Amino acid sequence: MFNKILIANRGEIAIRIIRACRELGVKTVAVYSTADKTALHAQIADEAVCIGPAPSKDSYLNSKALLAACEITGAQAIHPGFGFLSENSHFVRLCDKCGIKFIGPGADAMDAMGDKANAKKTMIENDVPVVPGSDGVVGTLEEAQEIAAKIGYPIMVKASAGGGGRGIRLVEKPEELEAAMTAAKQEAKQFFANDDIYIEKFIVNPRHVEIQLLADEHGNVIYLGERDCSLQRRNQKVLEESPSPIMTEDLRRRMGEAAVRAAKACGYANAGTVEFLVDKDLNFYFMEMNARIQVEHPVTEMVTGVDLVKAQINIAAGLPLQYKQEDIKLSGHVIECRINAEEPKNNFRPCPGKIKSIHMPGGFGVRIDTAVYQGYEIPPYYDSMIAKVLVKGEDRKEAIQKMKVALSEFLIEGINTNIDFQLNLLRDEDVESGNFDIGFLNRKDLTNY
Amino acid sequence: MFNKILIANRGEIAIRIIRACRELGVKTVAVYSTADKTALHAQIADEAVCIGPAPSKDSYLNSKALLAACEITGAQAIHPGFGFLSENSHFVRLCDKCGIKFIGPGADAMDAMGDKANAKKTMIENDVPVVPGSDGVVGTLEEAQEIAAKIGYPIMVKASAGGGGRGIRLVEKPEELEAAMTAAKQEAKQFFANDDIYIEKFIVNPRHVEIQLLADEHGNVIYLGERDCSLQRRNQKVLEESPSPIMTEDLRRRMGEAAVRAAKACGYANAGTVEFLVDKDLNFYFMEMNARIQVEHPVTEMVTGVDLVKAQINIAAGLPLQYKQEDIKLSGHVIECRINAEEPKNNFRPCPGKIKSIHMPGGFGVRIDTAVYQGYEIPPYYDSMIAKVLVKGEDRKEAIQKMKVALSEFLIEGINTNIDFQLNLLRDEDVESGNFDIGFLNRKDLTNY
Repeated sequence: MFNKILIANRGEIAIRIIRACRELGVKTVAVYSTADKTALHAQIADEAVCIGPAPSKDSYLNSKALLAACEITGAQAIHPGFGFLSENSHFVRLCDKCGIKFIGPGADAMDAMGDKANAKKTMIENDVPVVPGSDGVVGTLEEAQEIAAKIGYPIMVKASAGGGGRGIRLVEKPEELEAAMTAAKQEAKQFFANDDIYIEKFIVNPRHVEIQLLADEHGNVIYLGERDCSLQRRNQKVLEESPSPIMTEDLRRRMGEAAVRAAKACGYANAGTVEFLVDKDLNFYFMEMNARIQVEHPVTEMVTGVDLVKAQINIAAGLPLQYKQEDIKLSGHVIECRINAEEPKNNFRPCPGKIKSIHMPGGFGVRIDTAVYQGYEIPPYYDSMIAKVLVKGEDRKEAIQKMKVALSEFLIEGINTNIDFQLNLLRDEDVESGNFDIGFLNRKDLTNY
Repeated sequence: MFNKILIANRGEIAIRIIRACRELGVKTVAVYSTADKTALHAQIADEAVCIGPAPSKDSYLNSKALLAACEITGAQAIHPGFGFLSENSHFVRLCDKCGIKFIGPGADAMDAMGDKANAKKTMIENDVPVVPGSDGVVGTLEEAQEIAAKIGYPIMVKASAGGGGRGIRLVEKPEELEAAMTAAKQEAKQFFANDDIYIEKFIVNPRHVEIQLLADEHGNVIYLGERDCSLQRRNQKVLEESPSPIMTEDLRRRMGEAAVRAAKACGYANAGTVEFLVDKDLNFYFMEMNARIQVEHPVTEMVTGVDLVKAQINIAAGLPLQYKQEDIKLSGHVIECRINAEEPKNNFRPCPGKIKSIHMPGGFGVRIDTAVYQGYEIPPYYDSMIAKVLVKGEDRKEAIQKMKVALSEFLIEGINTNIDFQLNLLRDEDVESGNFDIGFLNRKDLTNY
């Protein structure tokens, strides 16, 4: 086991990692920017090193400063948390060169998953379902008609060089195909000087369901159930839960096994998440693999009892997985609400500032991961998430009720938060019944409370 | 279900009960003394009523004020918590007369367990092991010799009218019996003007192991595993855990079934605890039954997943138990440390005062039940317990390590606490190996840290 680990992150995930290190008897080094002098993670770690000015590029993204901090403190490994350098394979290779163990997957596995086109190809080769479509560029109308008939409407016609929603057309019926192709090609040519197009099935109102994996450096890979993260606002997850309201034993096994194949295909080691889209007929499609610990990892910890961050460190230290697939049992229902310093009624504008007073809920089945405290001034430079509130109930209904009680008790003075928005979300009848997809929060305005 | 419940208590247990009520959709009424104006329970309840001056007899023990508060607020039931009026059968009868449901056992069951001599007789009749001894007063030396030979040495010769350690003699060998009887009788005559004596087996270095029960008003009774509370200081529990380090499946079943018989014998309904002494050969003996929720109830909640306070309220509302015996599964290992505002190095002198700043641990597997907050002034009138820190690990070793990490992170400024004492306790090799009994903390001074 390592003697000392440097945590290349801030906020609640830094606290989370410090706790895991301590439980394993490992010393911790926090790093902080000049804006984070009073941050909790810098206070509670065994050592703390200032790595530069507030902007992330000058501190939390500053590879050299991080490696120098390892050198100074004698840290043998770096835990990157999420965001910042956590999925930067260049940084992983730098760590390797310096003899510092990066607590995460190897650079090659990271690259294999980072290149989306390549990842999709690997998935197909390994029998992991992907969104069906043409095998590359589609030339003629006849070719397009043939593919569309095979994969079934609705389909998307997409510009190969596309981005930002340009050169994309939704085609619901065969008779619309020709016009859509012409329009997409025209737009693609205009915006990207390249009128290559390809075809992909349009997944109608899918859910976002992701599978948590643990993989050791000896080829063992297990899945730890799913998290349903369909409640998103502009691709930002708002509320996550496990089990997914739509999950069945059989679907979980099939998705889990597909995720394990995905990890094995690229020689993945450490914790990782395979994100899938699930349609209304419970078909699932590979989206991408997140090569890091995720914000919502505590959902899985509470539903399985497995400490994922301790597992990450053990894996990085070369230990074999402590669990076999059959050891993983899900119990109860867990929900996480992300609490942000923001104004939902003002287009969710972030609102950093000083926390004058704070009372957080607690008690049976309630977990809070946070790095804020009474008197703390939230700096304006970073993510607006200030706490994750998690509850565990015997079933989904009890968990929702527990979350309502917990959030109602959560009092913060001095800044605005999305607590009332989250409460309003929990009172929505579609949310209560589990009837939502990734477009739900974009279609439904829940800021009137 | 009730519409509104009055909580006749203060501190963390009042907060605990308010949360349970809310999860059941029940409105809450807090009561507070003039010393508790700024107490958290009075702030977070739906309503709060001042019931009198600081001394408990004038407020929290003031039956009339409590019933008047029910009348004023329309509360239909009273949850007494622990301490105060929780085991006062006179108060239970008053509630009955006023048509207020007392959330706890009926007055008769409470009385049946409150009278220790009577309770012991009931236990014997119901095949619940009690400390063996004479069946009442022992007359002659021959009679005493016969009983002693039957139950085995060491034995205690005790004055029937005794108390305060007077008129008691430990007898380790048969040849000491006559002298001990003479001395005990003489002392008993001198102090109590009554030289009646009886004989009881002396249990050498027993452990305190208690069984948690839930009993509904329809005759269903289940046990929810045990709590080992052997780490006590002057009969005050310091650290509790479940499972007990000495427990076996078979012993748990036998103790559990004995506890269920005890409850059924007196028509007990609601939550209750049967306390046993367990000797080094794993024989167990009934001590007493606590007819209330206990301080350490969260230990059982975390190891079984059952919310005991919600169960209490459901039972009082007349609902049948939601669980059958076979539903109760224990998982992991849970430890509770009581955090007191006291000075261990100064004979554990209570030290109320103002909390200038506080940072509490949290995260995976950590639960804190507390009613204190930054800026709160702990009043000098009540119990010195300010928080209960609980952790759950996969096994005892992990739980101990998790507790060490949690307590190391717990920072309080402004008052003294026993946090360092608890840490020292957790580092003790006998505590680590589970090798202790109820005399352990009286024999071993752990205040040198």
